[in-house]
Amino acid sequence: MTTYQSTSPASNHHASEPGDAASLANILAPVAPEIALVEEYLVTNLIDDTVFIGELLAQIFQAGGKRIRPAITLLCSKATAKDKDSELSRLHIILAVLTELIHTASLVHDDVIDKATLRRGQETINKKWNERLAVLMGDLLFAQASVCLSRIMNPVVVGIYGQVLGDLCSGEIRQMQQQFSTSINFDSYIRKSIGKTASLFAAGSHSGAILNGSNDEVVESLKQYGLNLGLCFQIVDDLLDVSGTSFELGKQAGSDLSGGVITAPALFVLERGDAAAKRLETLIKTRAVSTAEGTLEALTLIKENGGIEKTQDLCRHYANLGKDCLLVLPQSDCKDSLESLIDYVVTRKK
Amino acid sequence: MTTYQSTSPASNHHASEPGDAASLANILAPVAPEIALVEEYLVTNLIDDTVFIGELLAQIFQAGGKRIRPAITLLCSKATAKDKDSELSRLHIILAVLTELIHTASLVHDDVIDKATLRRGQETINKKWNERLAVLMGDLLFAQASVCLSRIMNPVVVGIYGQVLGDLCSGEIRQMQQQFSTSINFDSYIRKSIGKTASLFAAGSHSGAILNGSNDEVVESLKQYGLNLGLCFQIVDDLLDVSGTSFELGKQAGSDLSGGVITAPALFVLERGDAAAKRLETLIKTRAVSTAEGTLEALTLIKENGGIEKTQDLCRHYANLGKDCLLVLPQSDCKDSLESLIDYVVTRKK
Repeated sequence: MTTYQSTSPASNHHASEPGDAASLANILAPVAPEIALVEEYLVTNLIDDTVFIGELLAQIFQAGGKRIRPAITLLCSKATAKDKDSELSRLHIILAVLTELIHTASLVHDDVIDKATLRRGQETINKKWNERLAVLMGDLLFAQASVCLSRIMNPVVVGIYGQVLGDLCSGEIRQMQQQFSTSINFDSYIRKSIGKTASLFAAGSHSGAILNGSNDEVVESLKQYGLNLGLCFQIVDDLLDVSGTSFELGKQAGSDLSGGVITAPALFVLERGDAAAKRLETLIKTRAVSTAEGTLEALTLIKENGGIEKTQDLCRHYANLGKDCLLVLPQSDCKDSLESLIDYVVTRKK
Repeated sequence: MTTYQSTSPASNHHASEPGDAASLANILAPVAPEIALVEEYLVTNLIDDTVFIGELLAQIFQAGGKRIRPAITLLCSKATAKDKDSELSRLHIILAVLTELIHTASLVHDDVIDKATLRRGQETINKKWNERLAVLMGDLLFAQASVCLSRIMNPVVVGIYGQVLGDLCSGEIRQMQQQFSTSINFDSYIRKSIGKTASLFAAGSHSGAILNGSNDEVVESLKQYGLNLGLCFQIVDDLLDVSGTSFELGKQAGSDLSGGVITAPALFVLERGDAAAKRLETLIKTRAVSTAEGTLEALTLIKENGGIEKTQDLCRHYANLGKDCLLVLPQSDCKDSLESLIDYVVTRKK
């Protein structure tokens, strides 16, 4: 039970190896036509007729991205649609678009903050042009999301996404405040992860059901599905930072730790209260983790003291909770895909 | 007619000298209780219970600011209210709050972009903490605005503000693209000024009338009032950068020019097509304006070739258009204040 693979038989209806691109394409097949529409919409300049802005949008979105957030939005929308065989309405497409817009806006601002030069294999806006344009383009993507939101014309959905925007910022600010602090606990780790990641997954997963007029039980279950899947996603991110190689990650392994960001794998060691915990605490508090040797020593401590396995267990815990949330849905291809998507997220390698 | 003072008799119902703080307080008297509520709301953390974020909001908003945008929103709301003697509803207060939130968010991001250290006499977020927090706090203020917007529960108003957010960014991006270019014309100058300034004024000026259920003529007239007042505001800003002293402005005079931002006073000289125009064009194109001597020579060229007077005329043109828009309103204290506010904006010294 300590191997990091899905054990759910339900995931076997997709033939590919979990975690790879082919497997993701299989999982998303039930909403493939809608995802194509989302791609078109993402590069549409909704604000004005400025050619330059249109080019920037194309550059940002044609660089790729897994589109997991819009996919969840579309799958949940279709799984709760009155007529499951017809294509989704324009409103559901816009909902998926705005979910990806918000995600991308926060990435563009993250790149400014981190002075990152590469994103999805392409030069970042701040590198290719400058920080000024990157701050403005992030703002513009948020604005495009606001325009989408206004077109949905549903005040409840506007409220949900308004709160998500706030959660994203407060999650990041909370993380910033906790840098190099070893007094954070699992409660604050989960709260921060909901804010910076799971909140947006949840908005996408239940807003489509609201537009479909689903009952409260379905809406709430799909919200919880999104929260649990989002937590899995964030925990796997944090796990990969510790267990992955720099080659696999496309960035330095241990970069969270070296930046003073304490996540689940380190927290599990810190809570042991033994010599390993004390040593890790010292490495963090003295900021020795910011050096190459310090990072290496911390990573080794985590690997040798069960940090990886316990984090995998935590991830499986949320994966199972997420799957349970789907019991409320009738059988459908989309329901199968939502279940497989959890396995995909849990087993992904980057 | 070339003096830069209001000549409208309608402005005389306020005793103070136009352009000073006492005069502004007089003008805003009809909505003073509502402005007090706006101040309370601005420092309320709408996202979560994080104490740190509450402190940051307090720091940002207690630094002051003239609150012209929320004041316009409140005055237009009250001027179109069914019962003019009662206080405005909670929705109108929220509308005024969100207008100021959007303005402040863009200031916080401007300070990051410009690496500014002082704003309203206090250290900027990027100076006091760091750029990371300033980008996030700007995003958080936009998020607070989104939460406000969702509470208004009016899809038309959501659409208006969604477009404003886009206009703000595209106005700034357009300005960035045109730096050190002398081929821009008045059309693009006005379009840029609407995007970066007047669009938000207009959103505030007509959204309250929409909430009040005013007829289309009143709604459209108040929108045009906001656009014209916003253009006046931006043109005066551009004028002060040329005509003001560094002491009055609290920043280096001519800073637009030295940064390659070409505004009305320079445009009026460039369109002359004579030797002065040619010389100014050379100073801009060669980026000589970025040096202290270059800035001084350009400012002198502008002052000696009618740049100031023609810009004052342009400003008066929009001021008169703005006043005409108010004819649609019945007589009231709020209507008088909206008219005086134009005079205040046109005659302000900083």
